[in-house]
Amino acid sequence: MAKKPNIIVSSTDLERLEDLLDSLPADAFPGKADLQAELERAEVVDPDQVPPSVVTMNSTVRFTIESTGQEFSRTLVYPKDVDSKGDKISILAPVGSALLGLSEGDQIEWPSPGGGMLRVRIMEVSHQPERAGETHS
Amino acid sequence: MAKKPNIIVSSTDLERLEDLLDSLPADAFPGKADLQAELERAEVVDPDQVPPSVVTMNSTVRFTIESTGQEFSRTLVYPKDVDSKGDKISILAPVGSALLGLSEGDQIEWPSPGGGMLRVRIMEVSHQPERAGETHS
Repeated sequence: MAKKPNIIVSSTDLERLEDLLDSLPADAFPGKADLQAELERAEVVDPDQVPPSVVTMNSTVRFTIESTGQEFSRTLVYPKDVDSKGDKISILAPVGSALLGLSEGDQIEWPSPGGGMLRVRIMEVSHQPERAGETHS
Repeated sequence: MAKKPNIIVSSTDLERLEDLLDSLPADAFPGKADLQAELERAEVVDPDQVPPSVVTMNSTVRFTIESTGQEFSRTLVYPKDVDSKGDKISILAPVGSALLGLSEGDQIEWPSPGGGMLRVRIMEVSHQPERAGETHS
């Protein structure tokens, strides 16, 4: 199990996520209680104060698999914005809920076929709405 | 890391999945090489010979989180069939690729917020196309 990193969340994301979680039954997805606990202990900041290296909602993250050096990208989205292209991860999906608020350099475990785990590093937040000035508090 | 269980795959699923994987670049998703390796070492059976307790494509699985007893269900689908409702997992998504060919009673690790992992058990394959006579070899 990876060390628990501190997470940073914008006040706008927090409000939207709390509304989303409140709208869902307790058993809507595994980790709902954990995500609520994370949001409660998160460092909450104004959108324009979010460090540019933090994963926020609608951020695009470039990852590297530690064992192979293979790179790939995913965008963390609200459930309504998932599509079939496979380049988005819902905040309610495995890994998605684990990504919020992490920073460049943090690592996560990614389940792989055959019961194994891939260790994956956040190399870069290649797009962050707050950094790009796309959100308003 | 969980023990590697043996996986069982129908010949029809195998053919479709190999076509899908062949159509994707090597870095399309983390675990692509692992999934290909799993398919190569899998026990391949005719669709009408798949044990009723095995997770096949388009199977619906009822899970229980070991630590809480909480239950939830997901359907394992091809990427084109993912939607925004959150009750489907793509075979190319985290956990999805790890589910194929597992059986009732098997456990997987499910990444949760804060860098932790939930241990999740496959309680029941509540729907399996092969068992329901919905596929043809």
